[in-house]
Amino acid sequence: MLNQRNPQLNRNGELVHLLSVEGLPRDIVTHILDTAATFVSVNDREVKKVPLLRGKSVFNLFFENSTRTRTTFEIAAKRLSADVFNLDIARSSASKGESLLDTIANLSAMAADLFVVRHSESGAPYLIAQHVAPHVHVINAGDGRHSHPTQGLLDMLTIRHFKKDFSNLTVAIVGDVLHSRVARSDIHGLTTLGCAEVRVVGPRTLVPADMAPMGVRVCHTLEEGLKDADVVITLRLQNERMSGALLPSSQEYFKSFGVTPERMRLAKPDAIVMHPGPINRGVEIHSAVVDGPQSVILPQVGFGIAVRMAVMSIVAGNTA
Amino acid sequence: MLNQRNPQLNRNGELVHLLSVEGLPRDIVTHILDTAATFVSVNDREVKKVPLLRGKSVFNLFFENSTRTRTTFEIAAKRLSADVFNLDIARSSASKGESLLDTIANLSAMAADLFVVRHSESGAPYLIAQHVAPHVHVINAGDGRHSHPTQGLLDMLTIRHFKKDFSNLTVAIVGDVLHSRVARSDIHGLTTLGCAEVRVVGPRTLVPADMAPMGVRVCHTLEEGLKDADVVITLRLQNERMSGALLPSSQEYFKSFGVTPERMRLAKPDAIVMHPGPINRGVEIHSAVVDGPQSVILPQVGFGIAVRMAVMSIVAGNTA
Amino acid sequence: MLNQRNPQLNRNGELVHLLSVEGLPRDIVTHILDTAATFVSVNDREVKKVPLLRGKSVFNLFFENSTRTRTTFEIAAKRLSADVFNLDIARSSASKGESLLDTIANLSAMAADLFVVRHSESGAPYLIAQHVAPHVHVINAGDGRHSHPTQGLLDMLTIRHFKKDFSNLTVAIVGDVLHSRVARSDIHGLTTLGCAEVRVVGPRTLVPADMAPMGVRVCHTLEEGLKDADVVITLRLQNERMSGALLPSSQEYFKSFGVTPERMRLAKPDAIVMHPGPINRGVEIHSAVVDGPQSVILPQVGFGIAVRMAVMSIVAGNTA
Repeated sequence: MLNQRNPQLNRNGELVHLLSVEGLPRDIVTHILDTAATFVSVNDREVKKVPLLRGKSVFNLFFENSTRTRTTFEIAAKRLSADVFNLDIARSSASKGESLLDTIANLSAMAADLFVVRHSESGAPYLIAQHVAPHVHVINAGDGRHSHPTQGLLDMLTIRHFKKDFSNLTVAIVGDVLHSRVARSDIHGLTTLGCAEVRVVGPRTLVPADMAPMGVRVCHTLEEGLKDADVVITLRLQNERMSGALLPSSQEYFKSFGVTPERMRLAKPDAIVMHPGPINRGVEIHSAVVDGPQSVILPQVGFGIAVRMAVMSIVAGNTA
Repeated sequence: MLNQRNPQLNRNGELVHLLSVEGLPRDIVTHILDTAATFVSVNDREVKKVPLLRGKSVFNLFFENSTRTRTTFEIAAKRLSADVFNLDIARSSASKGESLLDTIANLSAMAADLFVVRHSESGAPYLIAQHVAPHVHVINAGDGRHSHPTQGLLDMLTIRHFKKDFSNLTVAIVGDVLHSRVARSDIHGLTTLGCAEVRVVGPRTLVPADMAPMGVRVCHTLEEGLKDADVVITLRLQNERMSGALLPSSQEYFKSFGVTPERMRLAKPDAIVMHPGPINRGVEIHSAVVDGPQSVILPQVGFGIAVRMAVMSIVAGNTA
Repeated sequence: MLNQRNPQLNRNGELVHLLSVEGLPRDIVTHILDTAATFVSVNDREVKKVPLLRGKSVFNLFFENSTRTRTTFEIAAKRLSADVFNLDIARSSASKGESLLDTIANLSAMAADLFVVRHSESGAPYLIAQHVAPHVHVINAGDGRHSHPTQGLLDMLTIRHFKKDFSNLTVAIVGDVLHSRVARSDIHGLTTLGCAEVRVVGPRTLVPADMAPMGVRVCHTLEEGLKDADVVITLRLQNERMSGALLPSSQEYFKSFGVTPERMRLAKPDAIVMHPGPINRGVEIHSAVVDGPQSVILPQVGFGIAVRMAVMSIVAGNTA
């Protein structure tokens, strides 16, 4: 039975679904990161596969297409020795007028163990988690603008790997914060782990002043935002999610908020630069930064697989 | 070499292809159901995987799209430890003008062991079965209006599970019987297993009077059809397969033939209700029946995987 | 580090990428064929699976769709016990404006071991091979008109299987040589293995006279081309790659260059006939030849899987 106050946990406070970083107790976040760290070597291919999910069935339910994210979950599941089923949901029963919950009930009856859910509607993974059988686990792989918890957690793992401790860190999240589920997940993760200062940086159209209550500092110039930062998280300018009128042109945006080598000199000399991908080179970030010595963008990808392995193996061991 | 009289069997009377329930001897149907029953516990996840098809190659050849059916075969094959290949036939060589039999010959030369075939043309799986090498097995996953044998067999397994014996049963198949390969497969299965009475129930446009020679009772009112029934199999109203003129509106149809809680009182008190899915709630069946205590619709899904595992493991053990 | 003179080899002269048959030393071609020969029995299903790539990740990156070729690589990889990931590249990040090299860098960071690349641009697999990490191997599954090395190698394995020795052979490659990456790969393979005579046969529009410097004999009549040949490789008339004006009609083409049973009498009595598939029956080849006693077209398919297993297992054992 799910915890009344927190639908991600069971009555014993154990993680049974991963729906958002918001609401995860610090000890669970730390447990995920610790577990993920043990899988980094699997990902480095010293250890090739582990049998933790042998015989378990993982269903990728991508109501919204994302080849990249789906692939990372598929890799993570197969390295845990699970069987993976990629459902082309857009072409399936859903299109014959079946309701989401009937589709889910059917898949549950096929003895699924884990659902990895991507959906354009915020809250869809919550709805699913409330209706699955107790042995089924739901992992949110991105729901609308709301949350993308494994991306948030892989960012935390990356920062911890390079900076060790959060308590003295200044982290700047730069760009289209308004439309970014990554930004939301990062903010919750950083706050939970006791990050000293979290800044959200961008134009007023993309970084509303009323974000301050989330415990962040709102900066409307890159100069203010990058000053003495330890970590710079650049976000993809999500043209495809924005409406026309408020849209800055790519050139305008880059001129004011593009992260360039010159501007990176405002940050601490040992600052790292992150990006969730896919990158718009020359829009939110200069190529020389992407490929430069401060970039940890490619290591993020590997940490992403380790984090997904950790989350899947942890939830699969608990029961609602 | 295939049996001359029955292309599903070899000369020793063993099952080498599953093409239709029609023509299956009763002892083979019973053997499939007995074997499937042993796999129900695999599906319940007490046993996770069995190695019966380890190293075998199962090809899903879906000339007609059906994500749900394809997924159940994929699950069944992987739980038997087979390697599964999903061919996007619509986008493949077939579209370069290659003939069906050349495509099949090529796939056979890739050392396929099993073909799971879905095709909009009745008889396509028969044609394929006649042309594959002796070590290759064909399973019909639905051909036109003709047959859908694993659905028929899973319905038999479901009925046997809940009702034990067929000899005293009255089974009502309600709805679009004319267009339903499920109905045909069910009728043959029930007749073979000695079901006391099989009724087909629906309007004259969907249940022609000339079905009587199949050994069924034709009923044109739901009142007659449900009276004292032990099992009610509701069929999906297949709008997508019907031509315009004869099409009852969903509302009209529900008014006359929708299975509601009130009408279910005509059946025996312990009657069960089945549906092959996907369900049109409020068209062929009322939501309260779908989700009610007499519904065995979700257990059917699990039995479907067990039946598919049984069929695959049985045919793979025999040679044409 | 890659060999300066040959980007397929490392400094020790070992194969790390398979990009084209051109440039492969004879001893490496022979090693691939010898290794493939040992896998033929796996393909015959006496041996079901071998664990040579257990835990390795093979990514099928098909920028150009080819279900048939993709499937043979997937089969080969799974018989070597690898995990296989089919990326729907057309729908992936590439379409969000990410560059090819960023996509590749990301996939490498997911700890890929092998990329199987199909691309409409000649040279794309070379570009990728130059940018992957040293532990990642690239196999060209067809790039534009340039090369299709595993098809060339499977043709060599087929010829060696049926004819043993190349030094006395006359091989005729008939048809649309100009547009065929298969023809190019075959010519390089045959030359490398010391084939006595390679002929390219077809109309002037499809077999330019200036091919002679490749070490082949150019024949513009089928009579000259087939005379005393030991091996006849027919090519698919690739309507989809040709421009309108130069296109012979299918009927015209068949009249002059279609390989018929009568014309096959010009070749040696024990000549074999090959075709890379998919076949246009009655265009480049008569059905009676396809299905006749000299045809080795279906065995080619099985050899194709053995060759792909050989290439994958060989490159995976070496480091750039």
